[in-house]
Amino acid sequence: MAEKKPLKQYLMIPGPTPIPTRILAAMNHEMIGHRGPGFSKILGEVIEGLKWAYQTKNDVMVYPCSGTGGMETAVVNTLSAGDKALFVNIGNFGERWIKIAKVYGVDVIDLKVERGKACDPKTLEAELAKDKKKEYKAVFMQQNETSTGVINDVKALAQVVQKSHPDALIEVDAVSGLLAADLKTDDWGLDVVVSGSQKAFMVPPGLAAVSMSAEAWKAYESSKLPKHYWDIKNQKKFADKGQTYTTPPESIIFGMHEALKMIQEEGMENILKRHETNKNIVRSGVRAVGCRLLADDSCASPAVTAIFPPEGIDGEKVRSEMRRFGFELAPGQSDLKGKIFRIGHLGYVDYMELVATIGALELLFNELGTKVEIGKGVKAALAEIK
Amino acid sequence: MAEKKPLKQYLMIPGPTPIPTRILAAMNHEMIGHRGPGFSKILGEVIEGLKWAYQTKNDVMVYPCSGTGGMETAVVNTLSAGDKALFVNIGNFGERWIKIAKVYGVDVIDLKVERGKACDPKTLEAELAKDKKKEYKAVFMQQNETSTGVINDVKALAQVVQKSHPDALIEVDAVSGLLAADLKTDDWGLDVVVSGSQKAFMVPPGLAAVSMSAEAWKAYESSKLPKHYWDIKNQKKFADKGQTYTTPPESIIFGMHEALKMIQEEGMENILKRHETNKNIVRSGVRAVGCRLLADDSCASPAVTAIFPPEGIDGEKVRSEMRRFGFELAPGQSDLKGKIFRIGHLGYVDYMELVATIGALELLFNELGTKVEIGKGVKAALAEIK
Repeated sequence: MAEKKPLKQYLMIPGPTPIPTRILAAMNHEMIGHRGPGFSKILGEVIEGLKWAYQTKNDVMVYPCSGTGGMETAVVNTLSAGDKALFVNIGNFGERWIKIAKVYGVDVIDLKVERGKACDPKTLEAELAKDKKKEYKAVFMQQNETSTGVINDVKALAQVVQKSHPDALIEVDAVSGLLAADLKTDDWGLDVVVSGSQKAFMVPPGLAAVSMSAEAWKAYESSKLPKHYWDIKNQKKFADKGQTYTTPPESIIFGMHEALKMIQEEGMENILKRHETNKNIVRSGVRAVGCRLLADDSCASPAVTAIFPPEGIDGEKVRSEMRRFGFELAPGQSDLKGKIFRIGHLGYVDYMELVATIGALELLFNELGTKVEIGKGVKAALAEIK
Repeated sequence: MAEKKPLKQYLMIPGPTPIPTRILAAMNHEMIGHRGPGFSKILGEVIEGLKWAYQTKNDVMVYPCSGTGGMETAVVNTLSAGDKALFVNIGNFGERWIKIAKVYGVDVIDLKVERGKACDPKTLEAELAKDKKKEYKAVFMQQNETSTGVINDVKALAQVVQKSHPDALIEVDAVSGLLAADLKTDDWGLDVVVSGSQKAFMVPPGLAAVSMSAEAWKAYESSKLPKHYWDIKNQKKFADKGQTYTTPPESIIFGMHEALKMIQEEGMENILKRHETNKNIVRSGVRAVGCRLLADDSCASPAVTAIFPPEGIDGEKVRSEMRRFGFELAPGQSDLKGKIFRIGHLGYVDYMELVATIGALELLFNELGTKVEIGKGVKAALAEIK
């Protein structure tokens, strides 16, 4: 059986997530004039829906790009060359933000945390205390670090920044975290928040959103980094008339429009609970089949889990062999390549698909010679569905 | 009749163009792992198809962005701050490229040409002759200027550059021109060519492509402009393993994959002839109903036509009133706003839709008080279909 081409695909990567047929159907739509009233109405509703998801009254602008484009937008619109900025770096996407900032000549302070751990608020507090002249213009952090499956306590980290450096901006990459875990943009005082369509929004990739607080707009005015495509004041000028500066990715926007309806119908509490349960299913299931987890329970991501396979089995081998059963898993990145594999469980991912994933891992690990009692993993996984 | 909401929409703007159902159907596809072998195969075929459309053996890379992102990619990967570069500026998109270059500190020489005209190769020759020290690193030009409906003779302009400044790069914005008019990247020696999915490719917006000649790659090595999202060597590194640096806009790529099949089935000669006929239908039709054209026949675009309405009628009025009949037309940009309207006729636009557009204009102009003989425009339009 396992040698045959699988009948179905199970996309268990941390984005793009599977797309509900209702969203695919909404995208199956003719193009309309993007400078006409019909499009303006849809775009306006998308922006309102995004504000709901962000829990904000701040401006939210959208761009035709991937999440990384949103991260670049945050940097170039709030800083100047030579500005000091602190980067909470808990994984590959922390590294990416640092790389972007360095390209533009930002004076980067890299607060690197051991992989698999979140940033302890006390660690951030101590690091900020070193900056006695209060020179840091901004603190950048991931809400959820996709590469390690670790979630930061953004609320606690933001409080530390506000206490120590009240004038510093707080800029959050919420690309893989938004809607998987709670993020209160306004209540927590987050100045710039970046998200992407292909994550818990359940929409194909191609659209990023960026929110800007009043303080972030103030920083824009003094920011001297070169910007054109990412220029957010220009984007806002067009947003104010129901348009985007450049031609918008209409299909993705039609999909986002439907997705935001679905999301609001489900409700924030239900969405967050669903992702929490996904996390528990995966963690209990893979532990029961002899895997070790990269992240502690205390900082475990509700969006993606990074897993060490049983002793002697390569992470990339798990990925390639799981394809025989129809499962597409994610690789380890950078130093973790081959050491781990990752299961994405954000967006349009069902409890039972995750149970099935554990079942396939049981079959595979037995094939590969580990003695796993068949059924033990799925039993542990099922027990998490309450 | 004309007061009712129209039954159908006729999207006559210069992109996004209407999408064939065959392409929409291809896009109605589940997401797949973008770091897996299935996606690599599709992306590889898209790149091969793009090379066919570009008539090139050069590298072609794709980005999740609109056409403007492709224009920024061209600038930041080939130049450094302070470099002198000549911009052939025949309209709004010429202005846009200049704006991008100035943001990055390029020393811009603006060869501004009267709106509605192409750049005469002799004018370019004279301008280049002024640069006796041969300092110009690159010459930028639009193949087709969307804002004025003017097409440049890229072949002739490129020859002038090659003769005068053999070391200068030739960088072409072919976003709205590619496949509407012939463009031979290799035969004409074009170093960087930018295109966008939403034009004659007949695919929704959200994907741009950029080609790089060996000379352009050489320029990359000495280019010092800051770049991360647009860094084309990084993009190439991922392209070489069948991937993109950031998460690709999969739906658009599935659409492009199908579009490139359709385009190659139709054949380059047929596609170009179809756009030529579209141009003739529109020009003869609107002239017969009392309009004046912005562009001379000698430089008239096969992709879009800019039209002065009959005396006393505002261009924006034409646009808003034509919506009653179901037609979405494009506005004049910048100084031309209100003075002209534009009819897009590139991509998935049929001869008979254009005839219908002329028919609706006849009805409208009569309503607005001009004495147009009903049927005169459509007769002239039909006569162009050979």
